[in-house]
Parts: sequence; C-alpha cells; structure tokens
Amino acid sequence: MNKFKFQSGTKVFCGSNCLFENKNEIIKLGKKAFIVTGKASGHKSGALSDIINILNEAEIKFEIFDKIENNPSLHNVKDGGTSCRMSGADFIIGIGGGSPLDAAKAIAILAVNDIEPIQLLKNEFTIKPLPIAAIPTTAGTGSEVTAASILTIPEYETKMSFVHEDVFPKVAFLDAKYTESMKRDIAVNTAIDAMSHAIEGYLNRTASPMSDIFALESLNIFGTCLENLCEERFDYDTREKLLYASMLAGLTIAQTGTTIAHGMGYSLTYFKDIPHGKANGLLLPEYLRYNYQVAQDRVESVLKALKLISIDEFEKTMRRLISNDINFSQEELKKYSSLAMKQKSTLKNLRTVTEEDMYKILDKSLRS
Amino acid sequence: MNKFKFQSGTKVFCGSNCLFENKNEIIKLGKKAFIVTGKASGHKSGALSDIINILNEAEIKFEIFDKIENNPSLHNVKDGGTSCRMSGADFIIGIGGGSPLDAAKAIAILAVNDIEPIQLLKNEFTIKPLPIAAIPTTAGTGSEVTAASILTIPEYETKMSFVHEDVFPKVAFLDAKYTESMKRDIAVNTAIDAMSHAIEGYLNRTASPMSDIFALESLNIFGTCLENLCEERFDYDTREKLLYASMLAGLTIAQTGTTIAHGMGYSLTYFKDIPHGKANGLLLPEYLRYNYQVAQDRVESVLKALKLISIDEFEKTMRRLISNDINFSQEELKKYSSLAMKQKSTLKNLRTVTEEDMYKILDKSLRS
Repeated sequence: MNKFKFQSGTKVFCGSNCLFENKNEIIKLGKKAFIVTGKASGHKSGALSDIINILNEAEIKFEIFDKIENNPSLHNVKDGGTSCRMSGADFIIGIGGGSPLDAAKAIAILAVNDIEPIQLLKNEFTIKPLPIAAIPTTAGTGSEVTAASILTIPEYETKMSFVHEDVFPKVAFLDAKYTESMKRDIAVNTAIDAMSHAIEGYLNRTASPMSDIFALESLNIFGTCLENLCEERFDYDTREKLLYASMLAGLTIAQTGTTIAHGMGYSLTYFKDIPHGKANGLLLPEYLRYNYQVAQDRVESVLKALKLISIDEFEKTMRRLISNDINFSQEELKKYSSLAMKQKSTLKNLRTVTEEDMYKILDKSLRS
Repeated sequence: MNKFKFQSGTKVFCGSNCLFENKNEIIKLGKKAFIVTGKASGHKSGALSDIINILNEAEIKFEIFDKIENNPSLHNVKDGGTSCRMSGADFIIGIGGGSPLDAAKAIAILAVNDIEPIQLLKNEFTIKPLPIAAIPTTAGTGSEVTAASILTIPEYETKMSFVHEDVFPKVAFLDAKYTESMKRDIAVNTAIDAMSHAIEGYLNRTASPMSDIFALESLNIFGTCLENLCEERFDYDTREKLLYASMLAGLTIAQTGTTIAHGMGYSLTYFKDIPHGKANGLLLPEYLRYNYQVAQDRVESVLKALKLISIDEFEKTMRRLISNDINFSQEELKKYSSLAMKQKSTLKNLRTVTEEDMYKILDKSLRS
C-alpha cells in the first residue's frame, strides 16, 4: 500500500431541513457573523433568508457582503477582507457556489491577517483564520469540504489556488432545496465540474485508497443522474444525489487536488468567460483519451462507474449537455498550454504532460 | 436519501515511516507532551522510542504515563488526568491499542477540567481538552479516528462510553511496523474487534451512505485477510491491510456507533476477562442470524464483502480464529442480557431487541 494522508476538516450535515435542525452548529461559531455571498445565489436559493432568520432568532449580529463576483479576483476578496475586519465579525458564513465559498476562505484569512491577497497563494499568514460555515447552493464546487480556494489573478492571466488546512469549513449544510433555484445551464455546468473533480482526483498521481473510495462512489452516483441531466429532469431526488456526489468529489480533491482538465480550463474561463464547469467538460473527453494511453484500467473504472461503455459514449453524453460555440485561434491555444504548464496541479496528472500534449488536447477539444 | 451527518476530525497518515516523515504534525501540537500508553505495547512496538527520539530532537519536554490498564477504569484515567495536570503538558500522545487511546481521550479532558471521571459519561466538562496525537499498535480499536472513549465502570459492572467531538485525535499515524510485535491472539482478537465495528456500523439504524462506504470497504479488505488470519500468516502486507481496514471501521463507528454485539460483549470482558475483540467474535454469528430476520440484504452484503457464502461459513471461520472454553450459567447470561439492555447502543440495532432476544443470542453463542 502506498503512503497517504487522509483529512477532512468539515462536519457535514446532509438532508432536507438540515440547516434549521442543526442551527446550534452555526450559533456556536461566534458572536457576530460575516455573511459572504454573491449577488444572486444567496438570495434566490432561500439560504440567505434562512440564515438571517436563524441569526436573528439567536440574537447574533451579522453583516452581509453580497458582492462576490463569479471567479472572484484578489481585489474582490481584499474588499471582503477589509469589510469583514471592519465589521468586527468573529465567524464567516459562506453561501453560494464555488465563488462565494472560495472567497469566504480568503476573507477568513484576510480579516485577521494584515497581508496582501497575493500572499495567500504562498500561505503567508500567521494568525488563524476565522471559522467558516458553508452552505452550497450549487452541486458542483465541493468547496464546502475542501481547504482550497481558487482565485483569479489578473497579473498571471489565470486562476490559481491556495490550500490551507485552517480554512476547511468547520461545518457545511447540504440541503438540495437550496440548489433548486439553479437554472438548467448552471445546474449542468456545476454538475460537470463536480464530475471533473471525481475524475481528476481518480486519475491523479496522489490518489490514495481513501480518495479512490470517494471518487468512485461519486462517479457511481453521477452515473445514475446522467440521463436525468441530459433530459433536464431536475427532480428533488436528482438534485439531492448531485449535491451528495458533488460533496464526495470535494472530499476526493481535498485529498488529491485536480489535474490538467482544471489547469487548462482556467484559461477558457479567464479569456473567454466560459463557465468553469463547462470549460472542464469541453476538455474531458480528450483528457480521458490522453490518459487512457497510460492508465487504461483507471479510465475504464471511471467509465464503468458512470455506466458508460466507452470514451466515445462519454463524449456523446457531454455533447448532449454542453457545446462549444466559441472560436479559438492556434495562438490562443498555445498561450493556454503555456499557462497550464505553470499550474502546480499539472504535475499530478497520471500521464506526464508536455506543453505540446496540452496544445493537442485543447486543439482536438476546441477546434475540431 | 435519509438525513445524515458526516464527521472526521482526525488527520490520518498511513504508511511505512509516516511518523518520522510527518513529525512536524507532532511538534506543532504543543510545548510539552504527556505520553499515555500501557505497560507493554508502547515499549514493545517501538513506537514509544520513536516518539521519544522525535521529541528529544525537537527539544520538546515530555512525561510518560505507562500505567494504562487493559479496559481502563475511571480510577485509572483519574490517575492519568492528575499526573497530566501536574506535568504541565499541553498536548497528549496516545500509543497502544484501544485501552491507551481511549484513556488518552479521558485524560485530555480530566487534565484541564476539574471534574470526577464519572462526569465524563455525560460530557460534563466545559474547558476544551488537550489535543491528542494517536499511534495505534494494534489493528482493531479504530479509536485513533473516533471521538469515543470506552471506560470500565465498576459501579455499573460494565464498560460505558462517552463521545465528544473535541476528543477526535488531531492526528493519527498508522504504520504497520508498530503492529508487528502483537502476538497471534492479540492480532486475531483485535482484527475481530475491527471487523465487528464495520459489521455493527453497517447493521445500524444510524447507518448513512457515508458510513456504508467505509464499512463495506473495510469488510472488503478484511475479506482478503481472513484466510491469512486463520493460517496465522502475519506478513507485512496483511498487517498493513488490517491496520487500514481497522481505521476504516473506526471511521464507520465514528458516524454510527456500535450495537448489541459490543453491548453484550462488554459483560464477557467485565465478568470473565475475555478480551474485547474475542468477546464480540463469540457473539457475531448468532448476532448475524438474529439480524438476518429483518435485514437479509444487509447481512448478505456483509457476507459478500467478506467473500463468505453464508453465516454458517462465517461461523466456521470464527471458530478457526477463536473458541470459547469458559462455562456460563443461565443466571450469568440473564444478568448480561439485563446489563446490555441498558447500553444506549442497543437502540441502534437494526432489529428491535428485547432482553429475551439478548439472552437467546448469548445462550446459543456460549452454552451450545
């Protein structure tokens, strides 16, 4: 058995009404809350008003910072950190998809450490971040159970992550009703993001027996949801399964991190504004073909868990869910390849990757 | 999907030499260590001397309390708590099987809370316990990843547990070399204990999708070790698998707790000094037959994971591993049934249990 580490720092409550039934888990986090969310998701999902009711009833003061952008920048989290510090809050509640939850982790650090946001990337902080409660309103990020935060860095023209065990949310509440306000495209894109986490965690040099358990179980559940996703049947049971599978995929990447599908996808988001999950999804078929050459067994296990017979069938399924209508030049794809090579996660890909390999995957995925 | 909670508070390092390679995880816990172990296991396993080397090199002071008894009593942990408090230690290192690891949790609380040990059973403490590092030297307890501590209570003529999330060990080091000094009987008995955790966590009213994942994977691995256990082939690979399976079973009961096999087994240990794992093992075949009546599918999943075709084959395997050579009177078994009914965990058994049921299971297991 290879050496490995297993860590999960988050207490997770799953199921209908789990937030109200376990509200003490929020109340005990502190005396004043700083609520981090986006313009829409916290409000539309109903999670924000539920939290406000709980805090009011418990006579816990709070401030709401609902300015988190999609793919939050260093500037955005700096604003949040400053507001949080000024509010005097002693704990944070993140509500939303990956953007607010990742931003909450950065803000939890910046609120109590006098550093520039760029220093987050090197974990250059000394004071323990504020504790975080997380309420996902998409079934995709997995951020509610990871210690990672992905931020957009304009200086580097990409997204980069920091990972620190002190930003594992202390508690997460997974209630599928908060994901019901997602429109079709967001539901699909975020589901693909979660599936990508499970796949990249499984086809990963740092995969362990434990991460494999989570990844395969997550993919098994996705396998039972794929047809419903394609047919846009978003019943409560499917929403709940997707939310659970997304959390399992989060537990996977909490052990392994992601690899090149994410690494390349960041450029599609940064330069072309393609939603994160869709960006990964556009690349996944070629990514699987690429890794199949060195990890046939593992790729076949992925397909088997998803109940698909081949990578071709995987690709057909992806095409039912998403399609690319954006043109990319060769120069653009060369730039993306170069940027992706700089991502630390590239080293974790099962097959050793060259820049030329990256280019070929991008070209086959986006220009064929 | 039913509601559930998932929690794991322990960072786990698995593999050869994981203690030395991650010694910073010990060093950062505090400035003075209180080492909790038994008379033999810490010394024989080599784990104690490895820890002493690490602490000396890091110039961290320590005191050794190697007086933990098998099945530690309230009195025993009170002694440990007092010694720990007097030592001025700010963190605890537990080394050994279930007894030292469970005792470490009680001592971590008693060192900083001025309470009587009996108050532990009701979580009557307010000050956060000292952080704990755990190094198992048996592959059975799972205590390295649970928030539970089982103590012997002479007043109640049994063992009872307390559970509190603040006593999850912060970090655990699972290196199979520390389990190599176990003699045949201890290796077998502790393996059966771990298997019993996985089975009782799976045949449990509080089982969840997450606990099921851990339980079935644990039983799958036991299934690959059973023949080696029976044939006394304790090669390194088998030791490592058993240690990993035992940790997975620990993660299972960290979610679910145990049920009546443990509840009844406590009396066999308390009154007849039968080792804990063996006590469970003597009861497991009849326990499975009893639960089969209401949970045929689940019992069959247990057997399938263990690669056994029937409960009869399970029983034959148990008989190759352990046998009962102690006589029990009807009165004794009636007393044990009555005591087991008082265990909280009895309510978690899949089949609703009566005292008469308990008696029949005990009678068939021990007097036939």
